[in-house]
Amino acid sequence: MKIPLETVLPQDIETRSFAIIAAELGDRVLDPLQAPIIQRAIHTSADFDYADNLIFSPHAVEKAWQALRQGAWIVTDTNMAKTGVNKTALRQLGCEVHCFMADEDVAQAAKANGTTRAVACMEKAASLKVPLIFAIGNAPTALIRLYELIREGRLKPELIIGVPVGFVNVVESKELILSLDDVPHIVARGRKGGSNIAAAICNALLYQLVDRAY
Amino acid sequence: MKIPLETVLPQDIETRSFAIIAAELGDRVLDPLQAPIIQRAIHTSADFDYADNLIFSPHAVEKAWQALRQGAWIVTDTNMAKTGVNKTALRQLGCEVHCFMADEDVAQAAKANGTTRAVACMEKAASLKVPLIFAIGNAPTALIRLYELIREGRLKPELIIGVPVGFVNVVESKELILSLDDVPHIVARGRKGGSNIAAAICNALLYQLVDRAY
Repeated sequence: MKIPLETVLPQDIETRSFAIIAAELGDRVLDPLQAPIIQRAIHTSADFDYADNLIFSPHAVEKAWQALRQGAWIVTDTNMAKTGVNKTALRQLGCEVHCFMADEDVAQAAKANGTTRAVACMEKAASLKVPLIFAIGNAPTALIRLYELIREGRLKPELIIGVPVGFVNVVESKELILSLDDVPHIVARGRKGGSNIAAAICNALLYQLVDRAY
Repeated sequence: MKIPLETVLPQDIETRSFAIIAAELGDRVLDPLQAPIIQRAIHTSADFDYADNLIFSPHAVEKAWQALRQGAWIVTDTNMAKTGVNKTALRQLGCEVHCFMADEDVAQAAKANGTTRAVACMEKAASLKVPLIFAIGNAPTALIRLYELIREGRLKPELIIGVPVGFVNVVESKELILSLDDVPHIVARGRKGGSNIAAAICNALLYQLVDRAY
């Protein structure tokens, strides 16, 4: 079978993809700081809904950059999202990414308290004494617990990336985060999101701060 | 802020999600062997397009099960997809999942040959002497190389899960796989897909073979 392929060098595929995405977004005006994040979410999903559903609190991008320049830790709610965050970029900034979902103490705490493991993860993360960015692509219960911890004065994250995907309490959990005036956030309103979107947003933030010629 | 949440026990969230997905699919008739795979792709993306774009070659599911019962290796083109495949389920069947993208010999081969690393990964995998399932969620170049290796008689995989996402040669690479009459495949026709979808399809296949009460 003969199928004509577009000739693009390996190192040019991403640039070409972003050009196609920009072209298809047409004359839609995106905030220049938000555009690379929106475009990378579309790049990772081929789903243009992210041009409409990604909501940024005021100055969320600048605040995220500030935290990343201070060596923030990114905490994810899946090992998939953790795997997807670019380690070379993190290293250049002195940042780290962590996921506690597979930790034995988290499994025990979740069982003892009758919560999801994601809730136990958020409680474990809340005790960390470093600037924290949460990247939640799976568990609405993680977002709900983050909201409670913030309201209880036990947590003040630098940024919440609130993009769990799904059908049970997902929409509601995101509305809770959107209601937080005092915590920077990037939220995919509605049902859509995922570990891939969480990682893509982290990477979009990182790539604007580092030299990607690696 | 008060947002009413649905009360669902942690262990019941997935069941409830699948019930919602089934309800929203309405009276659409899905093949009973394909339905759990289609529904899990929707579950992982909240994108009902997967009800339309997932194409199964004849008996793809039964052939995948046969391979998994024989201890097949799943080869992915991203570490994210590898991370997303359920390890407990794999262990129960004596299967393994591998990704060669970060291997030093793959980086060298890609550089020497001017290919993507994904192409070098497929060539490395083609030399393995075990039943192989390919789960490609990212790189169209991986699918194109698989097609060539099969046509050259150098590879006979048990199944290709062809779900790369993107904008450059993605659609075309999937059409190549769809044209293979002699290789079982599950393909997300069009631009959509991703590492999350690749892992979700693997897990949907695995979950129908194992006891999930872990």
